Amino acid sequence: MDDVMADTLAAQLEWLRRNLGGTLTKEDFNGKRWAEVLSEFEQKALDALLAEGSFFGGLPVMPGCQEVLREMNQRFEVFVATAAMEFPASCGPKYDWLRKHFPFLDKGRFVFCGDKSILNADYLIDDLTRNLRGFRGEGVLFTAPHNVDERGWKRVSNWDEIGEMFLGQPSHVALVR
Amino acid sequence: MDDVMADTLAAQLEWLRRNLGGTLTKEDFNGKRWAEVLSEFEQKALDALLAEGSFFGGLPVMPGCQEVLREMNQRFEVFVATAAMEFPASCGPKYDWLRKHFPFLDKGRFVFCGDKSILNADYLIDDLTRNLRGFRGEGVLFTAPHNVDERGWKRVSNWDEIGEMFLGQPSHVALVR
Repeated sequence: MDDVMADTLAAQLEWLRRNLGGTLTKEDFNGKRWAEVLSEFEQKALDALLAEGSFFGGLPVMPGCQEVLREMNQRFEVFVATAAMEFPASCGPKYDWLRKHFPFLDKGRFVFCGDKSILNADYLIDDLTRNLRGFRGEGVLFTAPHNVDERGWKRVSNWDEIGEMFLGQPSHVALVR
Repeated sequence: MDDVMADTLAAQLEWLRRNLGGTLTKEDFNGKRWAEVLSEFEQKALDALLAEGSFFGGLPVMPGCQEVLREMNQRFEVFVATAAMEFPASCGPKYDWLRKHFPFLDKGRFVFCGDKSILNADYLIDDLTRNLRGFRGEGVLFTAPHNVDERGWKRVSNWDEIGEMFLGQPSHVALVR
């Protein structure tokens, strides 16, 4: 969900700009770990924000995600798995966010978890290689600033490319552009 | 979690007795579906209670569960999977309940889900055959009144028997009795 379906990083940077006067952009995170870019103070403030939970209810949806998932959901069993146990107060807001923006998805296929090696599926689309590494199916790395230098993974950069991979071309997904 | 780690049915019957004057016991549910035992009014009241969520924070722990899981957790990767998407407000109370009664378990291995066919594990201990049916590993049916007539499953009746199955005998689990 975070940084794949939801543009969590964009919302975090916007929050830093608005509240702490930060000037960081996504590009500043290219190939970097969180701690290499943010000050200790900024990290602590963001952690406190995430722990509060409601932040996750207002995240922007990644472009094309709704359109592509709507089609994929007609052909496949689409589950949404999201790490929620580090910030358990995020469960409610994350659930509400999914229901609001993806009303066509089956809520019985939402999975709030931590360690994603527990997932039994054919594909996992994730921005974190540590999640793909323990996955029993085929991992697909969703490009995010922090993973641009990772090699050796099937990679998609946006939801158009996910549509091409799973729905083929030509498809209704072309409408997303 | 429900009716395996937590005695959810006992708490529901106690709630009915205290608030609606019910006189049902667990034995009344032997081999029966919910709707065969409860009145429509009782079902609606219980559904409203469960939807409110906090009920799940006060459930009694099944006898022996803590002791056996503490030992199993030293030998295996123990995940806790619980259906929480029907009553999303239960996520917070369920998380707090697990942390309170099972502080030795890794919260990164809590899974709040719906459809348990998404679980990738070797064993699933569950009281519902519909969950075992779609599971890729070996299903173990935990005896509950509603499933006493189910045939064809490996079955355990309590946490002592889970200890015997996974930890062997003689073991510290004997202390549970």
